[in-house]
Amino acid sequence: MAENGSAGAARWHISRLPSETPLAAAGEQSIRPVLSRVISFVDASGPRSVLMLGGGDPTASACFRTAPEAEQAIVDALLSRKYNGYSPNVGVLPARRAIAEYLSRDLPYKVSADDVYLTSGCVQAIEVMVSILAQPGSNILLPRPGFPLYEGRTTFSCLEARHFDLMPDRGWEVDLEAVEALADENTAAMVVINPGNPCGSVYSRDHLAKIAETARKLGIIVIADEVYDHLTFGNTPFIPMGVFGDIVPVITLGSISKRWLVPGWRLGWIATCDPKGVLKEAKVHQSLQNYINITSDPATFIQGAVPQIIANTKEDYFKKIIDLLRNCADICYNKIKEIRGITCPHKPEGSMFVMVKLDLACLDGIHDDEDFCCRLAKEDSVILLPGSALGMKDWIRIAFATDPTGLEDALERIKSFCKRHGKVEA
Amino acid sequence: MAENGSAGAARWHISRLPSETPLAAAGEQSIRPVLSRVISFVDASGPRSVLMLGGGDPTASACFRTAPEAEQAIVDALLSRKYNGYSPNVGVLPARRAIAEYLSRDLPYKVSADDVYLTSGCVQAIEVMVSILAQPGSNILLPRPGFPLYEGRTTFSCLEARHFDLMPDRGWEVDLEAVEALADENTAAMVVINPGNPCGSVYSRDHLAKIAETARKLGIIVIADEVYDHLTFGNTPFIPMGVFGDIVPVITLGSISKRWLVPGWRLGWIATCDPKGVLKEAKVHQSLQNYINITSDPATFIQGAVPQIIANTKEDYFKKIIDLLRNCADICYNKIKEIRGITCPHKPEGSMFVMVKLDLACLDGIHDDEDFCCRLAKEDSVILLPGSALGMKDWIRIAFATDPTGLEDALERIKSFCKRHGKVEA
Repeated sequence: MAENGSAGAARWHISRLPSETPLAAAGEQSIRPVLSRVISFVDASGPRSVLMLGGGDPTASACFRTAPEAEQAIVDALLSRKYNGYSPNVGVLPARRAIAEYLSRDLPYKVSADDVYLTSGCVQAIEVMVSILAQPGSNILLPRPGFPLYEGRTTFSCLEARHFDLMPDRGWEVDLEAVEALADENTAAMVVINPGNPCGSVYSRDHLAKIAETARKLGIIVIADEVYDHLTFGNTPFIPMGVFGDIVPVITLGSISKRWLVPGWRLGWIATCDPKGVLKEAKVHQSLQNYINITSDPATFIQGAVPQIIANTKEDYFKKIIDLLRNCADICYNKIKEIRGITCPHKPEGSMFVMVKLDLACLDGIHDDEDFCCRLAKEDSVILLPGSALGMKDWIRIAFATDPTGLEDALERIKSFCKRHGKVEA
Repeated sequence: MAENGSAGAARWHISRLPSETPLAAAGEQSIRPVLSRVISFVDASGPRSVLMLGGGDPTASACFRTAPEAEQAIVDALLSRKYNGYSPNVGVLPARRAIAEYLSRDLPYKVSADDVYLTSGCVQAIEVMVSILAQPGSNILLPRPGFPLYEGRTTFSCLEARHFDLMPDRGWEVDLEAVEALADENTAAMVVINPGNPCGSVYSRDHLAKIAETARKLGIIVIADEVYDHLTFGNTPFIPMGVFGDIVPVITLGSISKRWLVPGWRLGWIATCDPKGVLKEAKVHQSLQNYINITSDPATFIQGAVPQIIANTKEDYFKKIIDLLRNCADICYNKIKEIRGITCPHKPEGSMFVMVKLDLACLDGIHDDEDFCCRLAKEDSVILLPGSALGMKDWIRIAFATDPTGLEDALERIKSFCKRHGKVEA
């Protein structure tokens, strides 16, 4: 039936669906297509191994292996045969209870199982939150740089995103004046990512309190993306935003993906940290229920393993991972100081990332951050993420959670790349 | 800060989000809230066990246990430690290849790995498809009775749903005249669920060919929901819609949930069955990519287990499950004949369900299907699904995939309930 060599799509209505849609725009607002483009520049026939410092998934390195107790918990839950069926849409009760207790350890009040909704990773937690906030005319305040899935979901949902800056010269703190200037009566929420992706920042108790007071003054709730909870290795300890739940209603997003190094297990959560019951009164729980009624759940036996994962993982495991991350961050930060062409304004203290600024004036013929990353991939087989994917043109995100030898090799290659492309100093 | 005894939600912008939204309506278009309402009528202090014939999850019965080979495949994939990280957004290649081969066995052409996208169960497959078809002004044709998640997602996405009837007196075949009357130039697709949920119907090759020809004439693609693929136990064999992919582009939705009895594992797929490449030309693959870029994936190690699950599950296992389902369907169909007040127009030949019609004229003081189910739950602790949840008022869906003894008990209780509430014959 093909006409003129084509498959004849024109006779099918589906071919008339518009191609320039919010979905098409949203699909580009994701780390994946940007990284894929960078990776496509790698010379696969080249002699050197590809060093991947682009994504937030350290599991390719043997040293970043999850706790054996966590693996055993999955096997036990699976073989119990209690978890092959559908789960309740909010998640199985023992897992919600275990997560509530886990979160409550660091809070001045108790989160209950009823406050916890299990999601398919933090990705789905973001999907759910954006979907329930997206009402005609409403807007949400997002950090810049941030995590592009927020932009993707807001674009797809026709929720207006307004960006406030994180300030590199102040440890990537939130520009609260900008937040005040952006918010209006249609602003439903602001997003705070702490520990910070992509900046490696960890906010002090004092800064978190200021965020809470600002949000309270503006009447907007805080979505606290704490997917990197407890992954801190500098001087600033991790303090959950929920500590300030009596000042501002907080919706915490989390996951076992990062702390347990199992992003592929797809187990996250939404937890309302709201001791005054504001969110309940505002019927946010009903909206959460409505959305999860029409979406998929995390695998039930993985949910079933959560209590055992939390209870059995030993402190030694967490300490080992923190020590590893600290070592990687040190290697990264110290080496960057030697490289002319990139600068790091703030030593990372948490998460698995650092943002570095390109000094294009020092680099010959490099147009921008994407050009830098693509050429680096092509010439040196090192993958970094262009900052423009995160709202920061001419910055670059380095994911340093990889085995230290490979990290040193990658940074050496970056140094050599910058040297080869360096402008001769006048 | 609580004012007048309330939590003071009014000062927070989130409390001003409208409560009557497409999301709120969508959240009700789901089996879960309806079943929860029915279950809430059960007298928990009653002496009798609760018999659950309401949902599509047979895993509570020990006889409906998955194949040990499938469990072993999960353990092997997990302990290989190759699958703890993120998967590619389309899914891991070996799993996509295995599913492509699995589907190709029953097709006159080959589906390739590139045609397969892994999803978090068939639920997410439906979410993805509805989301990419939802463009301003477009509509989709859905079966009545059907699976309410389609309605929930279309409502949420502001895609117009138009319903065609399935005809009980013709084996629940599609009313193709109705399809022709409903379709217009903005109709992107029609949905065909075969084997049928909720009707237990299995379409003949002849009827599937007629559906394909009708869709072709109308210029609309077919979304073939084959989540119950191969679960047939009557005279009509399962034939995938993709067999007619040269007549009409088919997008097949499937899952390991039903055939392998693991709905909690959340592993499904979208497969384009499109030998002429119409969907590729119409950029459907690009839309699929766009959506999966901003959504979550099934757990990576469950993806990793798929090739072994498909390769290792023995024919004996499938045969045993089919024999069990046939036995349950026979028990159900024969017993219903004895019950005055409900009638079954068509003996189920596939899936795990049968639709029965309430004869309210025979029942005293029963208002409708929901009233019937709620009273039955209260008085006899048997849970059935009101047909109104599926678009069929005064019908009821019985899920018969449960252990035969419990099934007989439940049907006996239904019989006794109908007798107690029966009108005295004139």
